[in-house]
Amino acid sequence: MAVQSLTDTLADLALIDGHCHPLLTRPLDATGFELASTEADSPPRAGVSYLDGQLGLAMRRWCSPLLDLPAGAPTGEYLARRSQLGVDVVAGRLLRAARLSHTLVDTGIADADLCSAAVVGKVAGAQAREVVRLERVAEQLASDGVDAADFASAYTDALGTATTGAVAVKSVLAYRHGFAIDPKRPAPAEIRKAAGAWLARAGTPRLDDPVLLRFVLWCGVDKGLPVQLHAGFGDRDVALARADPSLLQPFLEAAEPSNVAIVLLHCYPFHRQAGWLAQVYPNVYVDVGLTAAQVGARADAVLAEYFELAPFGKLLYSSDGYALPELYLVGAAQFRSSLSKLLASWVADRAMPLRDAERLAGQVGSTNARWLYDL
Amino acid sequence: MAVQSLTDTLADLALIDGHCHPLLTRPLDATGFELASTEADSPPRAGVSYLDGQLGLAMRRWCSPLLDLPAGAPTGEYLARRSQLGVDVVAGRLLRAARLSHTLVDTGIADADLCSAAVVGKVAGAQAREVVRLERVAEQLASDGVDAADFASAYTDALGTATTGAVAVKSVLAYRHGFAIDPKRPAPAEIRKAAGAWLARAGTPRLDDPVLLRFVLWCGVDKGLPVQLHAGFGDRDVALARADPSLLQPFLEAAEPSNVAIVLLHCYPFHRQAGWLAQVYPNVYVDVGLTAAQVGARADAVLAEYFELAPFGKLLYSSDGYALPELYLVGAAQFRSSLSKLLASWVADRAMPLRDAERLAGQVGSTNARWLYDL
Amino acid sequence: MAVQSLTDTLADLALIDGHCHPLLTRPLDATGFELASTEADSPPRAGVSYLDGQLGLAMRRWCSPLLDLPAGAPTGEYLARRSQLGVDVVAGRLLRAARLSHTLVDTGIADADLCSAAVVGKVAGAQAREVVRLERVAEQLASDGVDAADFASAYTDALGTATTGAVAVKSVLAYRHGFAIDPKRPAPAEIRKAAGAWLARAGTPRLDDPVLLRFVLWCGVDKGLPVQLHAGFGDRDVALARADPSLLQPFLEAAEPSNVAIVLLHCYPFHRQAGWLAQVYPNVYVDVGLTAAQVGARADAVLAEYFELAPFGKLLYSSDGYALPELYLVGAAQFRSSLSKLLASWVADRAMPLRDAERLAGQVGSTNARWLYDL
Repeated sequence: MAVQSLTDTLADLALIDGHCHPLLTRPLDATGFELASTEADSPPRAGVSYLDGQLGLAMRRWCSPLLDLPAGAPTGEYLARRSQLGVDVVAGRLLRAARLSHTLVDTGIADADLCSAAVVGKVAGAQAREVVRLERVAEQLASDGVDAADFASAYTDALGTATTGAVAVKSVLAYRHGFAIDPKRPAPAEIRKAAGAWLARAGTPRLDDPVLLRFVLWCGVDKGLPVQLHAGFGDRDVALARADPSLLQPFLEAAEPSNVAIVLLHCYPFHRQAGWLAQVYPNVYVDVGLTAAQVGARADAVLAEYFELAPFGKLLYSSDGYALPELYLVGAAQFRSSLSKLLASWVADRAMPLRDAERLAGQVGSTNARWLYDL
Repeated sequence: MAVQSLTDTLADLALIDGHCHPLLTRPLDATGFELASTEADSPPRAGVSYLDGQLGLAMRRWCSPLLDLPAGAPTGEYLARRSQLGVDVVAGRLLRAARLSHTLVDTGIADADLCSAAVVGKVAGAQAREVVRLERVAEQLASDGVDAADFASAYTDALGTATTGAVAVKSVLAYRHGFAIDPKRPAPAEIRKAAGAWLARAGTPRLDDPVLLRFVLWCGVDKGLPVQLHAGFGDRDVALARADPSLLQPFLEAAEPSNVAIVLLHCYPFHRQAGWLAQVYPNVYVDVGLTAAQVGARADAVLAEYFELAPFGKLLYSSDGYALPELYLVGAAQFRSSLSKLLASWVADRAMPLRDAERLAGQVGSTNARWLYDL
Repeated sequence: MAVQSLTDTLADLALIDGHCHPLLTRPLDATGFELASTEADSPPRAGVSYLDGQLGLAMRRWCSPLLDLPAGAPTGEYLARRSQLGVDVVAGRLLRAARLSHTLVDTGIADADLCSAAVVGKVAGAQAREVVRLERVAEQLASDGVDAADFASAYTDALGTATTGAVAVKSVLAYRHGFAIDPKRPAPAEIRKAAGAWLARAGTPRLDDPVLLRFVLWCGVDKGLPVQLHAGFGDRDVALARADPSLLQPFLEAAEPSNVAIVLLHCYPFHRQAGWLAQVYPNVYVDVGLTAAQVGARADAVLAEYFELAPFGKLLYSSDGYALPELYLVGAAQFRSSLSKLLASWVADRAMPLRDAERLAGQVGSTNARWLYDL
């Protein structure tokens, strides 16, 4: 009873996908598809397939019926069918089936084969809003030939321009340095010196200087928009132990007076740490994104761990979809499935009245984000 | 069958609440109640309520019927009813319903609105015994104007007096410095020097000097009573990553020859680390307190994680109740509910004979603590 | 239905036990048996029994029927019966009941009362293959009186001899230093200097010098065989926080061009970190060993956590059995039981077709290891 009611509630609920990336516009062969489905960045060894794992199972489960195949169709059949239908048809079917009201798109990955934020929204039949990646704005300035003395003011100007119409900023500090940083704003002289050293490097500069990372993070705080921070697992570029969000405590403390919301993305396997941060810091929110898609059926268990210490008003949905339309749909479908089972189990156990469970589904799937991002 | 039998066993079992704090004697308004129910120390942002989370659900589930409301009554109705009944009636109903034989009270928080350990016991209809907070004894000496040269001997004397009749001592090293400490006893000259610097600080001195923290911890060991150590999550004062109890290994090793029991309190999200410590160090015990109340229905899953590596003779119950009578009752009710389901699932799975499950319930709820604290 | 089918599949499947140790050949009294069943190395305090925990329950569940006792027989009866039957009969019954096709035996523990790898295989009715412990080869050279100038070349020669016919090498770096090491191969002069200091120590030298640990690890890589690395929990000799396998990222990166497989053993409580490493590093595999036996019925939950991020082609079974025949059998029986329930739950939930579940059981229990170790 409760499970059906909650399944219906979540089926009817248009989700806000609070963090995703653009779609890839070019077709992929089987090898390219496999690589795009994983956080790995090189092909698997013999005897291993990246699609033989939770995400692969979840794709076959949730996406196959939308491409006219039975649920659980073998990977080979699935890939043949998606190739036959073509990139646009597949993207349209899957993203519309994700039933999103809004999609917040991080536009910070430079790749000519990625579509715009607006196109993601159009394909999904949802309102698209932009999330500006703080480090990318700096890297763009470097490519444009800014000089060190002007860097700080040029960055402030460029960020002002970039965030016009955006709903949030995002930092990839976890990847570039890890969370054990000096929490203070750097002084102008420090910034100038660090910018000089950074800009003097050859080639396209990757922003990984800790002083400049702190500078752009604080500029993000100053914009007054919610700051999304990648935390926990991702591709191997991240030193996982340094991406534990609890290492951010000094920064969370320092940023609190600004009243700007800090949204911790993903967090796995440190999501329990993140839930505690969301309880004790009024400015901290937690996004359950990425995990739901990546862990597939295991989201039944993993999602529940986000619901331990965090106040329910601080939990947010996202897919972290990137490149493959499958990722946006799997995130949404798995989230709806796992959350409805979780809530139904609490109702059955009399831990929670059904009306609260229905309200909670709406909060995490939509209203918390609507409020937070002022949508 | 097994679940009913175990539910009955646990319902009949008077628990030993191995770690709690005094009750607040003054009434609270809705805002004050909400803040007292969380580890946060400032009010929530708009759109968020600290009572809209697991603990709030658990309060509505377990406490409402004791205040003549249906289980799951809305928070507003619950607060109105508790206000109508008054602090004393509510405390009496909830603490008696927790069915405790003993309540071990940490008296180390200085607040004139907190009751004594004896009053907690009287309200609960249980024997109350005191747990002496090591750092508080030092801070009291500082307030009394001890001088640095006398500090060490004055502390030893004061601790001797303070622990008369007490059953344990407690350290908040996790909050004041974290667990990465030099495990050795500090030398007299070090203590004198550190005491000089500490006592020279203005205002009420907070004991956070690592030398003095080690000194008081070792004085605690020397008393021969079990030493309770806060580990893992708590309020935001704790640097979570430094409160991982596995960082205590050098100290656990150094303390082992004393044969004094070290009781790791709470531990979440490092409770699996704690279970391993309890397996490999004969002197280490683990208290499952705080977590059961704070994570509500999720205690079904979290509690089970304490039962992985720890010998069952080393697991202890507590509520970590503080100020609000709800916390003592929710801890006990959720523990009884989650443990009976956990044990019943093992019996149903034939992993454990029913007679062992019944014995285990008694061990963790009472006899392990009775033995350890010599009650 | 699905659960029965999967139970049958796993019952019929001969497992490859990818990491275990030799059996003890001498009989043990009750105290010795208790100590051999735990990671603790000293007797328990009064009121505690190491056999009153998950492993003890699992032994009584899985081993008792093989010794003609009812499942769940009390510990005392179990010990009396095993003593009556004698070491050889008990070992034969339990190891054959584990139904192993291969047993890969780490022969690196020096103890005259341990049997050979070949004997483990004979008792189990399985093919036994050797795993060479890298540090032990160095310690043997030291005992034999090698001098510092010759150490590097003598080690290379000795390892070549030792690995003839072996299927893998193993490192206990986690115990000896922890994973935060310089990932580079040490230079000859460094090795010579470190060897000089190490060999100058009195008594049997324990290899814990970080330069020499790196040297032997890289020599292991150079052999081209899979390198097994103990990670996560074990006996108290390990500093748990330094045994988090994610701290190995720089080494995993450095070792990748060699194309040698790195097998992370155990990993608990860092098994989610390990699963991520297996996803993002093509050369990383994860062994679920030790945990299944040690956590008993909780393997139902813990095992599932290994199946979150890791590609299924990279998960491997082992028992980590050591000394007691019970450990080999409990590992295998609990793995079969927990995995069949886990897979059946996914099939019931329609997360996975039954044919995939059956294939996956075979992969993790046998074919992944057959491929990896070239059996």
